[in-house]
Amino acid sequence: MTSIHPQGPLPAPKTKRGERTRQKILDAAEREIGAKGFAEASIAAITAEADVAQGTFYLYFRTKEDVLRELVLRMGRRLRRHLTMAVTGATSRMEAERHGLHAFLAFVRDNPNLYRVVAESQFVDATVHKAYYDAFAANYREALEAAEAEGEITKGDAEVRAWALMGVADMVGRRYALYDPKASLHDAAEAAYDFIANGLMERRHG
Amino acid sequence: MTSIHPQGPLPAPKTKRGERTRQKILDAAEREIGAKGFAEASIAAITAEADVAQGTFYLYFRTKEDVLRELVLRMGRRLRRHLTMAVTGATSRMEAERHGLHAFLAFVRDNPNLYRVVAESQFVDATVHKAYYDAFAANYREALEAAEAEGEITKGDAEVRAWALMGVADMVGRRYALYDPKASLHDAAEAAYDFIANGLMERRHG
Repeated sequence: MTSIHPQGPLPAPKTKRGERTRQKILDAAEREIGAKGFAEASIAAITAEADVAQGTFYLYFRTKEDVLRELVLRMGRRLRRHLTMAVTGATSRMEAERHGLHAFLAFVRDNPNLYRVVAESQFVDATVHKAYYDAFAANYREALEAAEAEGEITKGDAEVRAWALMGVADMVGRRYALYDPKASLHDAAEAAYDFIANGLMERRHG
Repeated sequence: MTSIHPQGPLPAPKTKRGERTRQKILDAAEREIGAKGFAEASIAAITAEADVAQGTFYLYFRTKEDVLRELVLRMGRRLRRHLTMAVTGATSRMEAERHGLHAFLAFVRDNPNLYRVVAESQFVDATVHKAYYDAFAANYREALEAAEAEGEITKGDAEVRAWALMGVADMVGRRYALYDPKASLHDAAEAAYDFIANGLMERRHG
């Protein structure tokens, strides 16, 4: 497996304590980069925020870019786990979509900094950002194709639909979970679900 | 009207020639920032690319941030004009949506740098980036409410739908017009249209 880091894999912590320190640095970087942006967030500020010596940073990372790439992986892992848990028990694709929308909006509201870090990563390392979306889209496409085969959803282009569904979650998440901290996420998720289930078009019966 | 520039409005060119020079600098900045990212694109590189003296930059702009903000306005104006032309003559909201999707994908493929500049602006001046999306969403919401009143589309939350529709265009645009320069935009737009018109849900008749 190739590393996401152009200079090769990062050194792995040798002890549990080392792993905890590494996570503390990543937590601090998530807050710093999420709040100030990548350019403004210095390694000095990140280590101060993590309450470790600046030299400790270099035991686990070579550069600020390394940290950003690790945060994109973190977002991918956390969001996938969060969504998997949310849709467990759903008895159809549409029910999974509905639970997934609720879960995604809650995740963005709970992790605004992580969301911003991933968005900014496209301007720091476009490859890792694209890989993040490609991985989500590939999983999504597979689920849509299976649901289509089962007759649970209508026939359609699974690749376009996967990206369209990510776009709905992304923009509705931005509007309601990021920009508007008091908005009801429940109502937004239900309205978004209605949109992805039924579309806009009036169907004339008779 | 308040300026989008925190330090106040920019000096306006006094002559046609001045306006042409200002546009040349903006064109060069669009290419430089779009290709290299905001941090890497220097004023020196922008003026070299525009083939003007570095001092000329400061006749029209104070900072690189000023230029970025002007490019976000440029994208808004150009995209709005492009979409308005595309949907002129559409006889229903759904037909306008269909034409709008085709036109948006073509615009992103023709203006990849401008698209990236606007995306990056959220990390340089979040206010101007949010204003860009808010303005689009407000227009969109109004069009959806009018179409709902006319019975052209089903009832639904126009604000959520406006952002959901922007999300579909944005992500499908990213996937097909930005990442995949050889993909058929026609097919992607038609599949995206089917999604926004009909949704995913299988309707059992009988």
